[in-house]
Amino acid sequence: MKLSGVLPPICTPFENGVLALDKLKENFDRWNGTGLSGFLVLGSNGEVVYLNEKERLAMVEVSRESIPSSKIMMVGTGMESTQETIDFTNQVAKMGGDCALVVTPCYFKGSMKPQVLYDHFIAVADSSKIGILLYNVPQFTGVNLEPEWVAKLSEHPNIIGIKDSSGNIGQLSEIIHLSQKGFAVFTGSAPVLFPALCVGAVGGILAVANAIPEICVRIYNLFKEGKVDEARALQNRMTPLAKAVTTQHGIGGLKIAMDIAGYFGGNPRSPLIKPGKDVEEELKRLSLQLQNARVGGRA
Amino acid sequence: MKLSGVLPPICTPFENGVLALDKLKENFDRWNGTGLSGFLVLGSNGEVVYLNEKERLAMVEVSRESIPSSKIMMVGTGMESTQETIDFTNQVAKMGGDCALVVTPCYFKGSMKPQVLYDHFIAVADSSKIGILLYNVPQFTGVNLEPEWVAKLSEHPNIIGIKDSSGNIGQLSEIIHLSQKGFAVFTGSAPVLFPALCVGAVGGILAVANAIPEICVRIYNLFKEGKVDEARALQNRMTPLAKAVTTQHGIGGLKIAMDIAGYFGGNPRSPLIKPGKDVEEELKRLSLQLQNARVGGRA
Amino acid sequence: MKLSGVLPPICTPFENGVLALDKLKENFDRWNGTGLSGFLVLGSNGEVVYLNEKERLAMVEVSRESIPSSKIMMVGTGMESTQETIDFTNQVAKMGGDCALVVTPCYFKGSMKPQVLYDHFIAVADSSKIGILLYNVPQFTGVNLEPEWVAKLSEHPNIIGIKDSSGNIGQLSEIIHLSQKGFAVFTGSAPVLFPALCVGAVGGILAVANAIPEICVRIYNLFKEGKVDEARALQNRMTPLAKAVTTQHGIGGLKIAMDIAGYFGGNPRSPLIKPGKDVEEELKRLSLQLQNARVGGRA
Amino acid sequence: MKLSGVLPPICTPFENGVLALDKLKENFDRWNGTGLSGFLVLGSNGEVVYLNEKERLAMVEVSRESIPSSKIMMVGTGMESTQETIDFTNQVAKMGGDCALVVTPCYFKGSMKPQVLYDHFIAVADSSKIGILLYNVPQFTGVNLEPEWVAKLSEHPNIIGIKDSSGNIGQLSEIIHLSQKGFAVFTGSAPVLFPALCVGAVGGILAVANAIPEICVRIYNLFKEGKVDEARALQNRMTPLAKAVTTQHGIGGLKIAMDIAGYFGGNPRSPLIKPGKDVEEELKRLSLQLQNARVGGRA
Repeated sequence: MKLSGVLPPICTPFENGVLALDKLKENFDRWNGTGLSGFLVLGSNGEVVYLNEKERLAMVEVSRESIPSSKIMMVGTGMESTQETIDFTNQVAKMGGDCALVVTPCYFKGSMKPQVLYDHFIAVADSSKIGILLYNVPQFTGVNLEPEWVAKLSEHPNIIGIKDSSGNIGQLSEIIHLSQKGFAVFTGSAPVLFPALCVGAVGGILAVANAIPEICVRIYNLFKEGKVDEARALQNRMTPLAKAVTTQHGIGGLKIAMDIAGYFGGNPRSPLIKPGKDVEEELKRLSLQLQNARVGGRA
Repeated sequence: MKLSGVLPPICTPFENGVLALDKLKENFDRWNGTGLSGFLVLGSNGEVVYLNEKERLAMVEVSRESIPSSKIMMVGTGMESTQETIDFTNQVAKMGGDCALVVTPCYFKGSMKPQVLYDHFIAVADSSKIGILLYNVPQFTGVNLEPEWVAKLSEHPNIIGIKDSSGNIGQLSEIIHLSQKGFAVFTGSAPVLFPALCVGAVGGILAVANAIPEICVRIYNLFKEGKVDEARALQNRMTPLAKAVTTQHGIGGLKIAMDIAGYFGGNPRSPLIKPGKDVEEELKRLSLQLQNARVGGRA
Repeated sequence: MKLSGVLPPICTPFENGVLALDKLKENFDRWNGTGLSGFLVLGSNGEVVYLNEKERLAMVEVSRESIPSSKIMMVGTGMESTQETIDFTNQVAKMGGDCALVVTPCYFKGSMKPQVLYDHFIAVADSSKIGILLYNVPQFTGVNLEPEWVAKLSEHPNIIGIKDSSGNIGQLSEIIHLSQKGFAVFTGSAPVLFPALCVGAVGGILAVANAIPEICVRIYNLFKEGKVDEARALQNRMTPLAKAVTTQHGIGGLKIAMDIAGYFGGNPRSPLIKPGKDVEEELKRLSLQLQNARVGGRA
Repeated sequence: MKLSGVLPPICTPFENGVLALDKLKENFDRWNGTGLSGFLVLGSNGEVVYLNEKERLAMVEVSRESIPSSKIMMVGTGMESTQETIDFTNQVAKMGGDCALVVTPCYFKGSMKPQVLYDHFIAVADSSKIGILLYNVPQFTGVNLEPEWVAKLSEHPNIIGIKDSSGNIGQLSEIIHLSQKGFAVFTGSAPVLFPALCVGAVGGILAVANAIPEICVRIYNLFKEGKVDEARALQNRMTPLAKAVTTQHGIGGLKIAMDIAGYFGGNPRSPLIKPGKDVEEELKRLSLQLQNARVGGRA
């Protein structure tokens, strides 16, 4: 299995505040028919911080049943504690996850010096039964993994890649250039998917791919086929929706976009809220514009 | 029981990575002999983010046994999810906690708008069987509770106070001035305990009070007795140690200061580390200077 | 002349975009009848960044004529270049300025390391014919002078004080405690005048004192007379207007407040704008509330 | 004359603190023999904040004599005041500058709302006798021009382009996509020259091009010739030096790199300093590595 292409960090469906696993299966039925190369379960956009242990395990179990072996099943397993991260990673390994995405611990930002983060990741990698990818998302964590340290970590045989959600293409370039050959560098920011591919990223783990997987995959494929101008043009058309569903309207916005696209989005968990009618109208408008662009066949 | 005075957010003791509840009891034996007005269990400095559910309950249970009814037992119960916060708060209520400290949810910083935070706290307060205090700690959360919103929240009969750890005295002044009479405003920043008292704070919930409770209590008492110059002078002597154990050397530094003072500090949990010999020497020097100041009787 | 009390960083009056020196004189006529201990000419709020050299000299000249020798005439002389700062400071000395306020250079933030700033201030102090005060205003400059470095600088016989506009009372406390005896520490943030005095500041250099000098002076005097509760109460009443005229509505807001109080405010220079009617109404309301508080005699 | 390609923001040479115009001419003699498409005079890296009016005019005069009419002569004319910006821009126009680069005013960051900046740029564009380019450099100014506002400004016939030094490729993409056809978008960040070209930038205004113009130009040319892999590879080799001379070691570092490359670098003006021997050794090593890469002919 090759680590590349487009993966959505899948949203976790709730009905009346309760995990709706049947809705998750329905979403997988549709996602599996697209060109997505895999899925990230229990990512930030999966509202993992609002799930208890039992719910997290249920998400992994149902995902494992729904994801075909031809697609990547990546699971977010990072906790604040090193030992808890190791334990949960190996539980996921036992349940059949292909690889684990481990976020930088972050609550005590001031103490998360580069060497402390390095030791954390090495300890997890040493004990993990599956390959791990680093997860850098400074907008949530207030912590940034510098390229030099990513390069060092890439030397560990069990650290196989990174999802960098900083949106910083200069940093992504350096990570790609400095890290070991075969180290899989994904962007986690949909508005820069195209430039990320230009500097050598292997793909994207993109929130908006929950709602519009085909568009994201098409940008990736156009780029791979050398149709650079078309890829850039489609990126430009996708960017407004990509920004709206995450940066501007958060997970509530993303779930509305899923509803619009015919997936089950539903409500996020409290304290998150689903935005009102005006946001829904805005997202409908942006989705329609993008759909028209696609139907017309001209990116 | 009056909400005022000095409370330490108690450190959680570990031996070989395992919760050491006997050491906790020994620490309480000494703390109970000081002028501390109470304790915060499961605060940030209690490494609550590294404790699993069972460990958290054990901490609450042993603390309840150790804290006399004459002292406040406050427990940190804030989780990312509104419902989980309610559930855990009521579990703590059942176990005998006097009141709960509820941190601002923070993982999705961009979505934590004032109204979202307001609704979260109101929902918790509505359902909680004990009084709650708001916990504002922007240096960890990246989220700040503005004075106007604290004032609104103070109107709820079950929201009885706030711990503001921003260290921003202008903000603290406004919170005190704008909030309801009787609303208990604590600072969470030891280097500004004295000015916080000057602008009307009822006390401090201070990490360094784990190691030097008598000094913190003395500043509070001197101020209450109108000995303002002495209070200010002792504050100035305490500030270097107070900054060193939290801002500079984190919880590892705080635990060293506890060891120096004869409490059980021990090691923090990984990824946190205990600083090396040089920091230990620095903290010994700062502790000694402060002790001498105290012995001499002139603050 | 003692460096203490309340000084306004005086606004620069314009009529049709042209320096209105007669209006400045009229303002001085009224200011001189209040308890202000002096004036800061060419401060940030004097829109010095919008004045050419000729205009700056005219401001100094007219101010020198208008300020009685019993009051402090402090002049902002800090430029980006060390040599230009020295030259302008000595030109001001020749024109009769009592002392100079020298802002941290800031355009190349990344290069303004503590040692670089230290060397800059020492070079200026060595060559200046009048005493200089350091000016720390991180919200404009993006640069902060740490207390340890201020303490070192306070050892220079020609560096006689500091205006710290950070609003950070912890930092102000440390500066006061660590610096040499006699070093004059002013706050530059009106919402924290009272706590600044509590921790030992000698006074405030306060934008809002352009419009309501008597209130600012009264807080200072109440504190000096030991009427601490009254001082705190008046501070709390002043804070809303103090925040509105600077943080919220900038210099345009401050000039409206001056107009309301019977001074000449007028328009700021472009690109700054004067806020509209709604802000004017808000500031009138806040001014009236404050005035009533004063007339009633109970702070 | 087409606005595109690589331009250095030329360094200003000093000898013993005095403007060294002969050295400037010598630098131009060499620069003119490279593929640079033009020059930016009086940019940030030209230490314009340390030049008085007379020196600024001398820089423009000598540059005009030295720059052939086939190359772009762009001049930095932005001041804090709208009127001063207009006056200086038209003085530059009279002296033969081809176009002007106007930085966002920034001292009063809080007041520089989008509409205020918009009005400033429109006022300058309305009155300027030469075309103007916007200059967005948030790392120095603390102010960011959002793509939507740049797009609006691009509709003005006299606003012909932008230099965006944020290094944010997502933002650059949006600016390019949203702005009017023919609007010239330059990156000001050498480490992202390659991805900037990928998303459609017309070129770069790059500090490091003072020292290694041929390398920068070659990246640009390789990209234009469709040799994308070679362009990316050369970018990766250039990035370490590009980061070292600006982000890490400031203008002092850039001037060392010029000395190493055989240009006149010399000392920056105080308070800026020239870094010591260790930085010089580091920059020599980085320059040599890069030179070897070039000589070998394999990017």
